[in-house]
Amino acid sequence: MGGDFGPRVTVPAALDALERHPSLTILLVGHQDQIASVLKRLGHSEHPRIELLHAETVVAMDERPTFALRRRKDSSMYIALQAVAAGQAQACVSAGNTGALMVMGRGILQMLPGIDRPAITSAIPTMRGYSHMLDLGANVDCSAEHLLQFAIMGSVMLKAVAHIESPTVALLNIGAEEIKGNEQVKLASRLLAEQPDLNYIGFVEGDGVFSGKADLVVCDGFVGNIALKSSEGLARLISRKVRKSFSRNVYRRLLALLARPVIHELQQQLDPGKQNGASLLGLQGIVIKSHGGANRNCFAHAIDQAVSEVEMNIPGRISEHLEHYLINSSDPASAGRSNYP
Amino acid sequence: MGGDFGPRVTVPAALDALERHPSLTILLVGHQDQIASVLKRLGHSEHPRIELLHAETVVAMDERPTFALRRRKDSSMYIALQAVAAGQAQACVSAGNTGALMVMGRGILQMLPGIDRPAITSAIPTMRGYSHMLDLGANVDCSAEHLLQFAIMGSVMLKAVAHIESPTVALLNIGAEEIKGNEQVKLASRLLAEQPDLNYIGFVEGDGVFSGKADLVVCDGFVGNIALKSSEGLARLISRKVRKSFSRNVYRRLLALLARPVIHELQQQLDPGKQNGASLLGLQGIVIKSHGGANRNCFAHAIDQAVSEVEMNIPGRISEHLEHYLINSSDPASAGRSNYP
Repeated sequence: MGGDFGPRVTVPAALDALERHPSLTILLVGHQDQIASVLKRLGHSEHPRIELLHAETVVAMDERPTFALRRRKDSSMYIALQAVAAGQAQACVSAGNTGALMVMGRGILQMLPGIDRPAITSAIPTMRGYSHMLDLGANVDCSAEHLLQFAIMGSVMLKAVAHIESPTVALLNIGAEEIKGNEQVKLASRLLAEQPDLNYIGFVEGDGVFSGKADLVVCDGFVGNIALKSSEGLARLISRKVRKSFSRNVYRRLLALLARPVIHELQQQLDPGKQNGASLLGLQGIVIKSHGGANRNCFAHAIDQAVSEVEMNIPGRISEHLEHYLINSSDPASAGRSNYP
Repeated sequence: MGGDFGPRVTVPAALDALERHPSLTILLVGHQDQIASVLKRLGHSEHPRIELLHAETVVAMDERPTFALRRRKDSSMYIALQAVAAGQAQACVSAGNTGALMVMGRGILQMLPGIDRPAITSAIPTMRGYSHMLDLGANVDCSAEHLLQFAIMGSVMLKAVAHIESPTVALLNIGAEEIKGNEQVKLASRLLAEQPDLNYIGFVEGDGVFSGKADLVVCDGFVGNIALKSSEGLARLISRKVRKSFSRNVYRRLLALLARPVIHELQQQLDPGKQNGASLLGLQGIVIKSHGGANRNCFAHAIDQAVSEVEMNIPGRISEHLEHYLINSSDPASAGRSNYP
């Protein structure tokens, strides 16, 4: 039901995903009548691999997460997460209220041992391929230890999923020098450097995110969200200017026609919207957050992401690797806590 | 002496600026021998509108700002700012250590009455033309009242300089809804809304920066710096991918040749490095910060920026307009202070 378009986008996207994954079954959680009417319009009143799970209400985009957790037990988001907790589903995909998804996820699915908060992570295109960044918006105020936990989770995920033996980890900061940054980043840097099993390479500046200097860029959710969305905004501005520039006269329009395959290829490679489907790491279950503004294709991509996380058993593998770190990290983390200004 | 290249870039850039501005005189502050040798190499051992001001040391890029203020009184940065304070120069342009420039600027030039900290602002290209953003890196930890002061300064600057009668002001946040964001942004939003003379339009997300939703986007320096540099990083990534994509085969290389004027035009419009020369607002004097990595053209652009701020008497005009705000803002600001969690 979530996102800017609700079932109009999520239902056709689900049908696309079912076509791509023959062993997939989808539970559509939300208002039965609304979903049924979209399914009917699309000629799929009956589908052997779709089940409907009725939810009376929805979590509004501007609802406080804690309110949602307490009072929206009949919402599509709550019921979908419960389905995961009950083993009825193996993953939940939502384009709804991010804060509510995180707080409900934590409340219903529980955290992995040693992790306080879920963090949102996503692959981002770089000069060298792809890097991952976290947190992208789940946590607005993070302590240094939270940043350390994000670094460990992200690192473990890259080992398990991307098969990078020793992923390089950097902290996002406003300068590469030790003296730069706010208190929390400076303290986090010391905590990360103390971890023998983290391949910590120091600070990276905003422009370093896309240069691919690190496999994993760690930051608090406020900064990460704004960095990513600003970049998306600039990418849209560039794309708009390109279109305008290529349509100025007949000659340029002809040029644009000739260059169309190149432009299309570039758009495919670069549009961060195409990388839709960010993971909420740290939960005892798979939760994928889609952009609120995702269209059919993008939302289907978020479902693909869920399918591949199920196949790779991400939370299980993070959990296995975590045990090793937690033994090492418990000391510096608590030292960090008491030192925190 | 500052930036990644020192006199190799700043001296030729100064010569370019002198050519463009017939009434300009430049004081080159730094190590006499080094500057003289660059001038000589460029065939300008003598120039009627260049004076040399010797400085024995420089502020290093990784030096603590407060240390620099106390111990680097013989540095080029200190002596250049003193020249402004003494009325010997009307503006200072530096590519050096940003934090030191801000702290020294505050110590030597003093703040405008009612303003606690300088903020770095710059024009950024948007869908609708240009917006301004501040702070871009001078202040890593800002209270809600600092954000309010930035909003007032920026607003006054846009009135005075860009002749916008009632500039729209937005706060950078991770969502447009009232409940989103960290404590400081939420409190700042209330403070800004209480200001009768500010045209405050609420929160804007990262992607709203480049859509031009507001004439002025206010944020703390940590977030602003990372948002801007991330965007620059993505712009560079795009530019690299474009070059690569257009050089894949002979046909595409031909296409690139034909499209060269379009691509050049786009680069001109979009490269944020081209908008070099950010203002340190709030000081009783004009200080322009250049990118450390600025080349000759970019550094000359920062000098142009200084010339136009002198011509427009920015600090004087901000000061005039400020008086009006300060009467209105003193109450909510101090209320904010006591409420701040």
